[in-house]
Amino acid sequence: MPNQNSERMAFASDYMEGCHPAILQRLTETNLEKSAGYGTDAYSEAAREKIRAACEAPEAEVFFLAGGTQTNATVIDAMLRSYQGVIAAVSGHVAVHEAGAIEFGGHKVLTLEQTDGKISAEDIRACIDGYRLDDNHEHMVMPGMVYLSQPTEYGTLYSLRELEAISTVCREAGVSLYVDGARLAYALACPENDVSLPDLARLCDAFYIGGTKCGALFGEAVVFPKRGTVPHFFTIVKQHGALLAKGRIAGIQFETLFTDGLYDRIGERAIITAARIRAALQEKGYRLTIPSPTNQIFITMTNAEAEQLGEKVEMSFMEQMDADHAMMRICTSWATSDQDVDRLISCL
Amino acid sequence: MPNQNSERMAFASDYMEGCHPAILQRLTETNLEKSAGYGTDAYSEAAREKIRAACEAPEAEVFFLAGGTQTNATVIDAMLRSYQGVIAAVSGHVAVHEAGAIEFGGHKVLTLEQTDGKISAEDIRACIDGYRLDDNHEHMVMPGMVYLSQPTEYGTLYSLRELEAISTVCREAGVSLYVDGARLAYALACPENDVSLPDLARLCDAFYIGGTKCGALFGEAVVFPKRGTVPHFFTIVKQHGALLAKGRIAGIQFETLFTDGLYDRIGERAIITAARIRAALQEKGYRLTIPSPTNQIFITMTNAEAEQLGEKVEMSFMEQMDADHAMMRICTSWATSDQDVDRLISCL
Amino acid sequence: MPNQNSERMAFASDYMEGCHPAILQRLTETNLEKSAGYGTDAYSEAAREKIRAACEAPEAEVFFLAGGTQTNATVIDAMLRSYQGVIAAVSGHVAVHEAGAIEFGGHKVLTLEQTDGKISAEDIRACIDGYRLDDNHEHMVMPGMVYLSQPTEYGTLYSLRELEAISTVCREAGVSLYVDGARLAYALACPENDVSLPDLARLCDAFYIGGTKCGALFGEAVVFPKRGTVPHFFTIVKQHGALLAKGRIAGIQFETLFTDGLYDRIGERAIITAARIRAALQEKGYRLTIPSPTNQIFITMTNAEAEQLGEKVEMSFMEQMDADHAMMRICTSWATSDQDVDRLISCL
Amino acid sequence: MPNQNSERMAFASDYMEGCHPAILQRLTETNLEKSAGYGTDAYSEAAREKIRAACEAPEAEVFFLAGGTQTNATVIDAMLRSYQGVIAAVSGHVAVHEAGAIEFGGHKVLTLEQTDGKISAEDIRACIDGYRLDDNHEHMVMPGMVYLSQPTEYGTLYSLRELEAISTVCREAGVSLYVDGARLAYALACPENDVSLPDLARLCDAFYIGGTKCGALFGEAVVFPKRGTVPHFFTIVKQHGALLAKGRIAGIQFETLFTDGLYDRIGERAIITAARIRAALQEKGYRLTIPSPTNQIFITMTNAEAEQLGEKVEMSFMEQMDADHAMMRICTSWATSDQDVDRLISCL
Repeated sequence: MPNQNSERMAFASDYMEGCHPAILQRLTETNLEKSAGYGTDAYSEAAREKIRAACEAPEAEVFFLAGGTQTNATVIDAMLRSYQGVIAAVSGHVAVHEAGAIEFGGHKVLTLEQTDGKISAEDIRACIDGYRLDDNHEHMVMPGMVYLSQPTEYGTLYSLRELEAISTVCREAGVSLYVDGARLAYALACPENDVSLPDLARLCDAFYIGGTKCGALFGEAVVFPKRGTVPHFFTIVKQHGALLAKGRIAGIQFETLFTDGLYDRIGERAIITAARIRAALQEKGYRLTIPSPTNQIFITMTNAEAEQLGEKVEMSFMEQMDADHAMMRICTSWATSDQDVDRLISCL
Repeated sequence: MPNQNSERMAFASDYMEGCHPAILQRLTETNLEKSAGYGTDAYSEAAREKIRAACEAPEAEVFFLAGGTQTNATVIDAMLRSYQGVIAAVSGHVAVHEAGAIEFGGHKVLTLEQTDGKISAEDIRACIDGYRLDDNHEHMVMPGMVYLSQPTEYGTLYSLRELEAISTVCREAGVSLYVDGARLAYALACPENDVSLPDLARLCDAFYIGGTKCGALFGEAVVFPKRGTVPHFFTIVKQHGALLAKGRIAGIQFETLFTDGLYDRIGERAIITAARIRAALQEKGYRLTIPSPTNQIFITMTNAEAEQLGEKVEMSFMEQMDADHAMMRICTSWATSDQDVDRLISCL
Repeated sequence: MPNQNSERMAFASDYMEGCHPAILQRLTETNLEKSAGYGTDAYSEAAREKIRAACEAPEAEVFFLAGGTQTNATVIDAMLRSYQGVIAAVSGHVAVHEAGAIEFGGHKVLTLEQTDGKISAEDIRACIDGYRLDDNHEHMVMPGMVYLSQPTEYGTLYSLRELEAISTVCREAGVSLYVDGARLAYALACPENDVSLPDLARLCDAFYIGGTKCGALFGEAVVFPKRGTVPHFFTIVKQHGALLAKGRIAGIQFETLFTDGLYDRIGERAIITAARIRAALQEKGYRLTIPSPTNQIFITMTNAEAEQLGEKVEMSFMEQMDADHAMMRICTSWATSDQDVDRLISCL
Repeated sequence: MPNQNSERMAFASDYMEGCHPAILQRLTETNLEKSAGYGTDAYSEAAREKIRAACEAPEAEVFFLAGGTQTNATVIDAMLRSYQGVIAAVSGHVAVHEAGAIEFGGHKVLTLEQTDGKISAEDIRACIDGYRLDDNHEHMVMPGMVYLSQPTEYGTLYSLRELEAISTVCREAGVSLYVDGARLAYALACPENDVSLPDLARLCDAFYIGGTKCGALFGEAVVFPKRGTVPHFFTIVKQHGALLAKGRIAGIQFETLFTDGLYDRIGERAIITAARIRAALQEKGYRLTIPSPTNQIFITMTNAEAEQLGEKVEMSFMEQMDADHAMMRICTSWATSDQDVDRLISCL
């Protein structure tokens, strides 16, 4: 079967291929072995051990779920009490693009204004204080968690200093901090990034290491750095329909991703290719909408430009900015080759 | 990494391996092609078309989800109104082993007594009539759906006549009929079975064709035979955290399963090997607890027998029947070889 | 406006009148006073103090809600974790007649067989042990609470010994014990009863003292004997739509009910009149279906008897027992006069 | 028992008293009559008939619930499909002060910026169009209803022209329109108001006529102008814990409110007294924060002014506007006497 988009270069998202070949090879090697289900197999345990090591969090509990929305909905519901909500950027994935999965679990998303996809420690503190000082706060949704994405939905990064400030606010307020790492490989590989996996493990109550958008067939690895953070999380995962029967399929993928630096290399390829494209765009006079240093490039184009380039390059349409301009997105991934970039640049 | 259960023969479940090799081969062949996400790719469409053909339901809507509990929770929540519940056997998967996923969606499971895992048209009718005739029925949960498993959790089969009777009761009462086909391949391949995919499409409002337990890495194919049964099901799937970003991974698997009769062959292998084991058990004087003709064999053993055989053969412990006896389960699958069976029989 | 049931004597339920006249008088006396809302007024506090005294539970937290289903749904959801269910008799109000309110909150009702509306400590223990010993219990709903009704839906009573045994099982298992006292006045006033309010406070984690069926316009008083049992219960009540703006209306009612023994007298009247009716029924050869000593009398009648008596006396139809017999219910209340009873007996 | 706020004049809210004396009188007159429960009594039916007449909506279905949050949560959950959310002002009661009751039912509140508590037809249309035109709308929460308050939380009014424009947008888009009339009496009695009950019945899919804040002990009357709008609403009310056992208590109250123009008179008293206070405030140089013509008066005071006046007058603190200024609220009600107003004015 031919690729249905063969005529156009595919830069619309970072999950257009199957998976990194090393993963398929490992799935093939192990395919006929027999193992117990639900993540109790040896591969899943090996993956957990490697993730603990990478996070320098030997006590961490690690669970593998299938996708991002599922992971967010399950972790947030597990960590909040029924009367609590989750603070997020108005542009946060949980606030916009999860079809109400958080509300399906009974929780309000308490949105804060964003700058380049990020929210600040100051605004978080003001939100929590505002709740506490409100005479009617017992009639209101209590902030129980802060949700961040690293990188954000706009490809930007929280600096270590920003993340530490947010973590401090959260800990002082007794509010959990949770980081959505759907594209975490692309943050970790970014020269501008100074937040490491051990930093996340030190500063967050929970985070997930993305697989689906970072080279796996599917799968996200939830990390609770502190043992016992969520009692009975296994059952909560099951109740949310998120428990994989053949848990080893996720385990093998994450074991592979965390062997011999594969997760790092996946991120690096996307970052190097994105940097080349970004430089070319700027050279050709395109206007970058958002200063994102990771694998997502946001470009403000005239409608005509978007249409013309769109004939040759499959991009994502983000939003109509005004009558004449649109924000478009180009994504690179682990699978983006130098030749792909050459061809793209030749069209600009 | 060695199989952690290498010393014992593995007959505990039908999802102990990765997947049928043909699926891995196909995933490998197509791996680097680029495609759109969320099931809008050509492979998913091809799989849908093949499933429609196999079901003789050209108008059917088909969706691919990751696992069984997720599928049940999403379909049941999508098809019920908020004040409705789902009728199921007390032994039904939704009633026992989904950690309250149906209740998480707000719905009560209305349980009926079972015989060999099955419920009858008469009992369903009595349940619905009992509700309707109750003076207080407006204070009660309205039956809105009937949930069956084919084969059942005890490996038994609804006959075509039984299914037709249940379907008639449901249609007369305006109650949906939904069949959980987690192990459907093993029903379809069973000589005792007279319910075909077209029969399911004709008699049910929704059903799913199991992948996870029938040779796929993961995945279940939900079939709504009648177009428009559930408006906006795509969004409901997303809201339930059940939407696969790389939908094509499920699509490729189901396309492979429904090409050249693979799904049939997967079922047949399990049925042939189960029949051999069953015959040997009976010859050796073991007592089969339940007359199941499919790939699950339930055996009443003394505790000593269970322990002794358990040293060589990994089985599932089902329940302690009395102080001295346990119900054990042996499962075959697409991956069970004749040699596996020979070895098992030699231990009986 | 005439009473629409004026021709027939009204014995169908215990909430057919407005409220005990002392309550209306007190509401009238205080009507134009101004007070703060949401139960922060002095009347509500006085009522709480009197209930604490009656329960000999000086630390108890007391909240006033509007009705029984609302109270059950709110308390159960507040006390269970998301993955837990509530154990109840199959005949329990939460299991049958709350239209799925418990499931709306995401929780399964785990039903046990009943005898005269009651469940036993042994069966509760077996249920909890069965869960714990099940190899698959992590895939199942965890019992997190036991729900009892005192008196039960069939008018029967748990003895102190039975309640102590159940409480012991619950505490050993770390499972909450909650008692629905919708008709508690009628238990407390019953000579056969040996469970006092202080006993309930000592043995339960939560219970409610019924107002709606015991002489109030509406209202139930939730008692948490141990302070801090449910943090933020006020907000949970609000989230469930169960917070009364004019909380004082409930407060004034309960203060009145717990002043000068009114709640006791309300119960006594119903018990005395029920006893007279019960004796007359037995004398006339009627068969009492259930040995209930409280204000609900269940009678097995032939269809013809039910119809004939029904022409003069409004009863509740409970269920069709077989083709020829029905179970009917006669209820007395605080408002049942001796003359009412005389007239009823004259019709038997 | 003395009023605990006797030293200060009570202007903090419009639900500080019991109820209009005519209601208590009627409850007393009918108290010992016997009637069926759950709103099936003759008083409830009479109240429904009077409301239908007042709304000129002879086919309307009318239900009585206990309070505002409960009513909003029940109606919104009943009218939305699971994947839909409700559009509301950021200042809407459902968005801020219901402790997440809408999210508890699984629905997102889609907030729009407000002006004086109101949202515009244009912004509603833009929100709906924005959803529909978004490439990712299947991953987003679908707008399924518009929620307005009349009067708003800031005491302002939608004009008939504004309401008609909103209704037109809703009907063109297939989105329900629901109006929260917690303080509807104070809108209807306001000279500036041109939206009548028949207008609401003509333009909305559902609305409620407030009792709790408009002279009743408790209670809100939900009106579905078009019969069959929500099938099985009775059961949905029960499932939400919102069904009153003694439904007649609400029925008698609403029958009284809609007899001899009582509901109008209740509103008028509040409006006349508010107008006097508002005029006096302006004369004395106070700055009204919001141009509200109904019974809520919002005043921007210096902190010192607020403290000083607060010693004599109990007001509501709304929010701290800047370091030096606070927004305070004074409320009148049906119970506000001319003497109360005289005393208040003398303190300004």
